Amino acid sequence: MNPRVPAALERTRLLVGPALEAAVNRLSPRIRRPGRYHFGWADQRGETVPGGGHGKGVRPTLALLSAEAVGAPPEVGLPGAVAVELVHNFSLVHDDIIDDDPERRHRATVWKVFGTGDAIVVGDALMLLAMEVLLDESTPERTSAAAELVRATADMIAGQYLDMTFDRSGSVDVEQCWEMVSLKTGALLTYACGVGAMLAGAPTDTVRLLGRFGDHLGRAFQAVDDLLGIWGDPAVTGKPVGNDLRNRKRSIPVIVALHSGTPAGDRLEKLYAQDRLDDADLARAADLVEEAGGREACLFAAREDMDKAAEALSQAGIEARVEEELMDLAEFVVNRQY
Amino acid sequence: MNPRVPAALERTRLLVGPALEAAVNRLSPRIRRPGRYHFGWADQRGETVPGGGHGKGVRPTLALLSAEAVGAPPEVGLPGAVAVELVHNFSLVHDDIIDDDPERRHRATVWKVFGTGDAIVVGDALMLLAMEVLLDESTPERTSAAAELVRATADMIAGQYLDMTFDRSGSVDVEQCWEMVSLKTGALLTYACGVGAMLAGAPTDTVRLLGRFGDHLGRAFQAVDDLLGIWGDPAVTGKPVGNDLRNRKRSIPVIVALHSGTPAGDRLEKLYAQDRLDDADLARAADLVEEAGGREACLFAAREDMDKAAEALSQAGIEARVEEELMDLAEFVVNRQY
Repeated sequence: MNPRVPAALERTRLLVGPALEAAVNRLSPRIRRPGRYHFGWADQRGETVPGGGHGKGVRPTLALLSAEAVGAPPEVGLPGAVAVELVHNFSLVHDDIIDDDPERRHRATVWKVFGTGDAIVVGDALMLLAMEVLLDESTPERTSAAAELVRATADMIAGQYLDMTFDRSGSVDVEQCWEMVSLKTGALLTYACGVGAMLAGAPTDTVRLLGRFGDHLGRAFQAVDDLLGIWGDPAVTGKPVGNDLRNRKRSIPVIVALHSGTPAGDRLEKLYAQDRLDDADLARAADLVEEAGGREACLFAAREDMDKAAEALSQAGIEARVEEELMDLAEFVVNRQY
Repeated sequence: MNPRVPAALERTRLLVGPALEAAVNRLSPRIRRPGRYHFGWADQRGETVPGGGHGKGVRPTLALLSAEAVGAPPEVGLPGAVAVELVHNFSLVHDDIIDDDPERRHRATVWKVFGTGDAIVVGDALMLLAMEVLLDESTPERTSAAAELVRATADMIAGQYLDMTFDRSGSVDVEQCWEMVSLKTGALLTYACGVGAMLAGAPTDTVRLLGRFGDHLGRAFQAVDDLLGIWGDPAVTGKPVGNDLRNRKRSIPVIVALHSGTPAGDRLEKLYAQDRLDDADLARAADLVEEAGGREACLFAAREDMDKAAEALSQAGIEARVEEELMDLAEFVVNRQY
């Protein structure tokens, strides 16, 4: 099932798209080219792609809604929206190198086209650009938003690194895995959901509750992403089938399965210990994760986090229309491609 | 000739060393280990190295002197000193991946020990840590210092990227090369020389002139670094002999030689076009660069930039004792290992 796209995503795309492109065009001329390629605005030779531009824009939309949630116009959240999308894309560019992923959004990844060195620099430049966008003005709100972005990004990176070390270690349990997810995925979504309100000068408690909504959304998002990494349709995800299993990734469903104490879990462990997994092995691994309850537990966790997200939002006491749009967006994120 | 180490370097090491180590210890536990390894405080297994800690600490010393230059105690410049050293080391960690350098400071580089993915993440984390150190407090001085650091780092990265694209292109002239150097090396030294005064709330003009001193120092520094990349003693530089020539680097002396219109320059061009350079080729390439005037021109440029650095400093109207120490440090940087 591919649910209808929430109105908020369409609405904010018009606002965020041009601002994001204007920010990326601030990069020095040579870095701009791989940067514009990454975002889908240009092809490998630098030619503009008409109607180009990729990514669902979930994070910037959350940032704009976060401003609207406290009664401010969406434009107030715009620098936060652009910054959070830049940081997200910095992490994608670097992650694709680290994970050796050749494709993203049905296109060759930046490192694959321009080389590893270039992709490292482009990622660095996008991260710095995010900070520049916020620090362009030195109001107290902008400064706080920049300081929080640095913290959120540092947490994201710490989570990313935990994830990498998990993949090399057999001893990770389900709880450690969720802690990692809260850092890797939750931190930036926490930030996205709070930054608009922060820029609007809202009370700390409101920002905190909006952020909590984002953390739970992040956990639900990651749970679904992990499911897509095993059972996602390559035509939709833009990644090869069974990609996470091939990379012996210790994602949530896999860790649940490995710790299930079931015969299927044991068989999965033996399979994961193999030197190479061929296509038949990948299909068998996916079945074993499902048989060991990994798929169901992951789906259940996603739904539970969605309930907690909704609870945080209702406690925040924000405008009813915006609360509905935020939940609509959250549902879209969790139900995408399922 | 190895000139005596300036007193300022020794003096500030006591102040900056512990603050830098405390900052790096703020990294999440798993990233801390490769981070501490990079700085030389720990070995590959994470064991503390007694008396460890590498790097000459030129940039942090400049930052502290920059505060003293306007009559503030050196401690005022300390967050800037730590931040600038963190950014410098972020760039070293990423550059070593990009340049495929297996050794730095006589030790295996981070990517060589921990892998490319880990080194990317460690670099990212060091860059963010630099911003965190400055944004820990939200005074106007700290905020400006953070915003300027973001700009300087973005310039540094733009310069680094230019440098990378230069190495692939035969059409770079001497002027373009110097522009690249001002970005790659000058931007962060400009920042280092201004940040202490900035944190002390000094007038913009003073910060600007101190920064100009740093830019010229950066150009002189890079000129010498390029000379060391060809003629440096591996026992001192910690890099293989003729490393830059082996990598077909278009450094300043090489570009001067290639554009010299001399027979030696033409022979160098043919040599650089070869698929592989063996040790005899490397020795010949170094001789050709020298014969074409690349070595002398590079040394001359370094001295000229030193004069301009001194001029900027005398215009800044700072304390005489500090002016002397800054020039002392500049001389040390330019004369190191010569």
